[in-house]
Amino acid sequence: MNLILIEPQEGAPDGRVTLNDHRAAHIRQVLRAQPGAVLRVGLLNGPRGTATVATVDADGVSLHCTWEKDIPPVPRVDLLLALPRPKVMRRMWAQLAALGVGRILLTNADRVERVYFDTHVLRPDIYRPLLIEGLQQAQDTRLPEVSIHKQLKILVEDQLDRLFPDHLRLVAHLSVRRPLADAVPEDFAGRLLLAVGPEGGWTTYELDLLARHGFAPVGLGPRTLRSDTACLALLTLAHSALAADDGKPQPQSEDRSL
Amino acid sequence: MNLILIEPQEGAPDGRVTLNDHRAAHIRQVLRAQPGAVLRVGLLNGPRGTATVATVDADGVSLHCTWEKDIPPVPRVDLLLALPRPKVMRRMWAQLAALGVGRILLTNADRVERVYFDTHVLRPDIYRPLLIEGLQQAQDTRLPEVSIHKQLKILVEDQLDRLFPDHLRLVAHLSVRRPLADAVPEDFAGRLLLAVGPEGGWTTYELDLLARHGFAPVGLGPRTLRSDTACLALLTLAHSALAADDGKPQPQSEDRSL
Repeated sequence: MNLILIEPQEGAPDGRVTLNDHRAAHIRQVLRAQPGAVLRVGLLNGPRGTATVATVDADGVSLHCTWEKDIPPVPRVDLLLALPRPKVMRRMWAQLAALGVGRILLTNADRVERVYFDTHVLRPDIYRPLLIEGLQQAQDTRLPEVSIHKQLKILVEDQLDRLFPDHLRLVAHLSVRRPLADAVPEDFAGRLLLAVGPEGGWTTYELDLLARHGFAPVGLGPRTLRSDTACLALLTLAHSALAADDGKPQPQSEDRSL
Repeated sequence: MNLILIEPQEGAPDGRVTLNDHRAAHIRQVLRAQPGAVLRVGLLNGPRGTATVATVDADGVSLHCTWEKDIPPVPRVDLLLALPRPKVMRRMWAQLAALGVGRILLTNADRVERVYFDTHVLRPDIYRPLLIEGLQQAQDTRLPEVSIHKQLKILVEDQLDRLFPDHLRLVAHLSVRRPLADAVPEDFAGRLLLAVGPEGGWTTYELDLLARHGFAPVGLGPRTLRSDTACLALLTLAHSALAADDGKPQPQSEDRSL
């Protein structure tokens, strides 16, 4: 926990916050913070800041927070991910949030088993704490938005243009030679939508559908990676390709609701 | 299992191999291969090839293998890794082999706990099958060489120059802004030695030691990643930076023994 995230409703307008859950335990037992200590904090979907420890006792830890003026930008990569097996998905939540994604769209695909959609790993009460764990690791405050789509065709044909009108769209596929970095223009200052397929890959039909809707194919080199490793590797490469342009204005869609 | 790896001592000179362990179970139950089916195989540290299934019965699966002429090159990245917690290390073996490393040097560091070296996860009988699992995923045959070093100073001062005389040496550290890609010359055709620190980072002393021995510092951007995620991200970026030069001759050290 490199930054302690606080929910907006937990903070009083004067910056005072009292914690008495696992975060308080972390402050007491791992950070061993005494009154007067200064900790890094963040307001969920808000600014980062610092907190001075006011009191530490059995009832909890009370902090006095001072927030920075700026809010961290939403990560410039959004992810359209064919739903992995529940066990794999569970492991991925924190890592996706740590690597940085603005939005996670989980979709069905031909090689995704329908029963995967019944897992409790897709319940917000399960995945939200895991996403927050990843944000706290990465010192980010921007909670990825998650949505679940049981029909890829409807998502791609009817919803993507409204959700991502200006995104650069890339689809990762095994047999493609072109590296991701080559598909991102050098002066690119916008956002990227990255489609990552299921364990067995996208079908030809799905690749055609994505191609017709502006997704340019990219590959990961000659090694076949496990789908979760591949997804994390692709996110890493996407951020690396975008990093050359960091500091430029980052257009963000205002309408972030599905 | 995208390729079935066979140990050299398992194959007869005429290419016949009989399997009766988990690989036979995989061929029977997952691939549902019948006599006549053709499978992708590899000879450990040797060539890839194809195998025609001769017989499938309760005793095992017998194959007739034909090997390619060329042996896959050793991955061009070697890893000097401060030993992670045993639980994390266990999870990393297959992923490291899948992403591709020639050699894995596990080292002590100030922020590595000494007891980590006592774990069974460092026993070849535990990690070798995990490395092979990663190779089978990535369709590689080159088993990473593993060595364990309890004193970073001795390793860096007395052994590295002999082991890695010509490697480009990079050390990853959190506060460094320079991306890995910028540290690899465009026409670089050699091998890379990447040093990755422990959960809490390298100490100033360790960074100085590495700098004095030719390690150039690189960073991963503003997000703090879990050390295992960071390691996989760095390996991904290293391969991506080297990929531009794929196809060029790849000098390899002949003496690969420690």
